[in-house]
Amino acid sequence: MTRYQYLANLLAERIEQGLYRHGEKLPSVRTLSQEHGVSISTVQQAYQTLENLQLIAAQPRSGYFVAPRKAQPPVPAMSSPVQRPVEITQWDEVNTLLADHHDKSLIAFGSGAPDVSQATLKPLWRELSRLVQHNPCAVLGYDELPGRKDLREQIARIMLDSETVVVAEDVVVTNGCHSALAIALLAVCKPGDIVAVESPCYYGTMQMLRGFDIKAIEIPTDPQTGISIEALELALEQWPIKGVILVPNCNNPLGFIMPDARKRAVLSLAQRHDIVIFEDDIYGELAREYPRPRTIKSWDIDGRVLLCSSFTKSIAPGLHVGWIVPGRYRDRVLHMKYATSSTSVPAMQMAVAAFIRDGHYHRHLRRMRQIYQHNMEDWTCRVRQYFPCDICVTRPQGSFMLWIELPEMVDMVCVAKQLCRLKIQVAPGSLFSATGKYRNCLRINCALPLNDKNQEALRLMGEAVSIALE
Amino acid sequence: MTRYQYLANLLAERIEQGLYRHGEKLPSVRTLSQEHGVSISTVQQAYQTLENLQLIAAQPRSGYFVAPRKAQPPVPAMSSPVQRPVEITQWDEVNTLLADHHDKSLIAFGSGAPDVSQATLKPLWRELSRLVQHNPCAVLGYDELPGRKDLREQIARIMLDSETVVVAEDVVVTNGCHSALAIALLAVCKPGDIVAVESPCYYGTMQMLRGFDIKAIEIPTDPQTGISIEALELALEQWPIKGVILVPNCNNPLGFIMPDARKRAVLSLAQRHDIVIFEDDIYGELAREYPRPRTIKSWDIDGRVLLCSSFTKSIAPGLHVGWIVPGRYRDRVLHMKYATSSTSVPAMQMAVAAFIRDGHYHRHLRRMRQIYQHNMEDWTCRVRQYFPCDICVTRPQGSFMLWIELPEMVDMVCVAKQLCRLKIQVAPGSLFSATGKYRNCLRINCALPLNDKNQEALRLMGEAVSIALE
Repeated sequence: MTRYQYLANLLAERIEQGLYRHGEKLPSVRTLSQEHGVSISTVQQAYQTLENLQLIAAQPRSGYFVAPRKAQPPVPAMSSPVQRPVEITQWDEVNTLLADHHDKSLIAFGSGAPDVSQATLKPLWRELSRLVQHNPCAVLGYDELPGRKDLREQIARIMLDSETVVVAEDVVVTNGCHSALAIALLAVCKPGDIVAVESPCYYGTMQMLRGFDIKAIEIPTDPQTGISIEALELALEQWPIKGVILVPNCNNPLGFIMPDARKRAVLSLAQRHDIVIFEDDIYGELAREYPRPRTIKSWDIDGRVLLCSSFTKSIAPGLHVGWIVPGRYRDRVLHMKYATSSTSVPAMQMAVAAFIRDGHYHRHLRRMRQIYQHNMEDWTCRVRQYFPCDICVTRPQGSFMLWIELPEMVDMVCVAKQLCRLKIQVAPGSLFSATGKYRNCLRINCALPLNDKNQEALRLMGEAVSIALE
Repeated sequence: MTRYQYLANLLAERIEQGLYRHGEKLPSVRTLSQEHGVSISTVQQAYQTLENLQLIAAQPRSGYFVAPRKAQPPVPAMSSPVQRPVEITQWDEVNTLLADHHDKSLIAFGSGAPDVSQATLKPLWRELSRLVQHNPCAVLGYDELPGRKDLREQIARIMLDSETVVVAEDVVVTNGCHSALAIALLAVCKPGDIVAVESPCYYGTMQMLRGFDIKAIEIPTDPQTGISIEALELALEQWPIKGVILVPNCNNPLGFIMPDARKRAVLSLAQRHDIVIFEDDIYGELAREYPRPRTIKSWDIDGRVLLCSSFTKSIAPGLHVGWIVPGRYRDRVLHMKYATSSTSVPAMQMAVAAFIRDGHYHRHLRRMRQIYQHNMEDWTCRVRQYFPCDICVTRPQGSFMLWIELPEMVDMVCVAKQLCRLKIQVAPGSLFSATGKYRNCLRINCALPLNDKNQEALRLMGEAVSIALE
C-alpha cells in the first residue's frame, strides 16, 4: 500500500468511526503533512481519493469538509418465491450469458470470474512449469479415481480452517465445484426428484438441476442470514424433498454468511426429515471474517452433508480442481465420478498441492480477501453514486458479488439487452429464479479494481436503470 | 531404428513372405554382413533378435535355420451373449481394478494406459511450460463452454484423416472420451432406457450405463468384423432400444476394425429403426492401416451419430482433452456438458492445439503406430510361447490391447486373484460382460516394450493358466 492510500484509509476509518463528524472541517493539508511526516502532495492525493469516494468535499479557499452522510441503501428484504416444485427453464438465456463472458469486446460484469492477475499466484505457474519439465510421466499418466493423495491431504489440512475435521480418505477430487455438485446430485437424486434451493439461487446450479430433470423448490432467503428455516420446514412437510442445496458462506448471489446457530438449525432440520444437504462452499475461503466461517459439514455427525468446493474462486478457474467430502455417499460418489468424468488432470492437482504445502495458498488468500473487500467497498460506493436512490443493495460478508434490487417497474432483462449494445454485460436477476422472479434485480462482479473503464460502464448502467424508471 | 533392428525386420518379413522357408538354412553371418554392408556384430544382433522371437533357431556349428512354423492360435469365435436388456453389476470389481492400476508394486497388464515415455511428446511439455509462463491469464481463466476455438479447429482438421468432414462449430470439447460418452448418453437417454453394446464391451462404458441407470443389451460381436448386424436388427425389432454404443475402429477389447460395408450397414439399420449411434473412436488414430479407417460418422447425413473421442490414447491420459461431434444433439450436449462439468482445462487444450498445429501430433502418431505394432507382435509371440496351446487370441488391427480366450474351464477371476499375489494385475474377461460371460478370457495391455520384467510376468501368467487347466 502506498503512503497516500494508507493515509486515505486512516482518514476514511476516522470518518466512519465518527471522529470527524459530517459537515466538520478536516485538518489542513499542511497540518496533516507535519502530523504524519509525509509530503504535501501525499496528503493532497489522499484527500483527492476521499473526494473521489464522495466521503469528503473540497470548499474553494476553505479546505476539506466531511461530506454529509448519504444514507446507505437498504439491504433487500427476505425473498418470497412461489413455494412449489417447478421445472427450470431459461437454458438459452444462460447459454447466451456464458458465451458473452468470452466476448472480448464486452465488459463482463455478469461473469463469476475472480481476479487471477495477482503476483501471489506466481509460485503456482512456476510449480506447474517445473512439474511439466521434471515429472512428465506423472503429468501425462492416469490419475487415481479419488484424486491424488498429496492433494487430498492438503485439502483435509485447509478444511481445518473451517473446523471441518476430515482425512484424505474422506475427500474425492473433482474437476471443479460444478462437477462436484453434479456428482453429488447424481449420487443422491433421480430424475423427477425435488430439491430445495435458496432463492435467489445461482443459475449454474439451477441449470444443473434442469439437466438432470430434478425439480427445484425455491425457499425464501434472507439477504443477511440465509434460507428461512421455517419456510424450509413447511416445504419439507408438504413435499417429498430429497435434499437442499445451500451456499451458507459468502452466498452467491446474496453474499451473506449464515450465522452458526442457523447452520446448526438447518442441519438438525435435515436430520429430522432425513434429507441430504448439498453444501456449496466455493466462496467460503473468501469470507472477510477471520477465522473463516464454519461449514455445516463441520457439525455433520451422520454423513448427510455432501460438501462441494473448489479452488476456482480462491485460486483460479483454469485449474479445474474441486472436491467433495461425500460423507455416507462415498461409494456412490466414486461411481458417479467414474461414470461422468473418470479421473481428473494430474498436473493441476500436483501444482495446487505444492502451492498449498509451501504456504503460498494462505498468503494468496489473505491478499485476495483484502483486495476483494477493498474493491467491494469501492464498487458499492459508486453504485450508490450512479444508481437511483430507491434501490436495495446487499452487504456481502465476503467474495466479490453484489446483488442490486431495483424498483419493481425496472425490467433488467430489457435493460441488460440495452446495455449489451453498449458492450456492457450484466447477469439479470431473472436467471436466479425458476419462477420468473427478480426481473428487477442484477448481480455484478466486483472482483477487479474500479478503473476508469469499469467506472464509466457502471455510470452507464446507472443511467440505463434511471431511464427505465422514467 | 538401429541397423540391426532394420535388418531383423527385413529378415522377419522375408520369412513371413516365404522367401526363406521353414527349416531352411539362412545366409551366414559373413554373407549377410557383406551383402548389406554392415558389421558382423550387427548381423549377429539381428539374428539374436529373431532367435528371441523364436522365428529362427541356431544350430551349433551349422548356422541359423528358419524355425518350423508354430501354428498361430485361432481368433476367438463370434460371441453369443444373452440377448435381453440387463442391469450392470460388478462396480466393486471395477473399482478394485482401477485402484490396482496405481499400486506401484503391481505390473498393471489390466490398465488401458498408453506409452507416454516417447521423445516425440517432448514438444508437448515444452509448449505447456511455455504457455504457463507466457500466458498465465488464459491458462488460469475460464474456458468457453464448447471449448477453445483453436483446439476445435485443429480437431476438425485431424478428423479429415478419417474422411469425417466437420467444422470447429460441430465440435464440443470435453474432459476426455469418457466424459464425452457420458455427456452423449445423458443428452440422449433417460434412466430405464435400453442401449445396445458390443459383446465383450469395455467395462468403463458398462459402469457408465450402470451409473446412469441405463440397461445394456449385449449383441454378438465377431472379433474380426465387429457387431453382428443381424443380431442387432433382431434386438431392435424386439426391444425399445434407444441407441447402440460402438467402437468400430481398433475395438476395445477385441482390436478389430469394422469393414466399411458393415459400418454403412449398421448406420442404415440405425436410420431404419431411428436409433442413435454412440461412436467411440478413442483408439481410431492408432489403426495400423494407412490412411486410418473411416468413422461411421463420416457417412452420417442426419446427425444421428454422436462421435466421441479424445487424445487419451493417441497422446496422453493426463491431458483429459476429448471431444464430441454431437450432430443433431448439439444443444442438449452443450447443456449436459454444462450440467456435468461446466468447462474444461484451458492449458491442456492450448497445448494440444499447438502440438497438432506444429505437426508434432502426426509425427508422434506415426511413431506410436510403429511401436505398438512392433510390441503387439512381440507380445503375441510370447503369449503363444508361454500359454497353453488350446487358446484363441485376437489379431488386433491397431491399438495395443490383446484379448485371450482360454479353455472354458479356466476361471480367470480366480487366476487373476492368484496373479495379484504375484504382483501381476490383469483384467479378467468377466468385467467386459453384464451377464457373467468371458470368465475364461482376459485382456492384456501390450503398449510397453517386452522387457525382462514383463516377459517374466507373462511367463508366470501362462503358468498360472496352465495350472488352472490341470
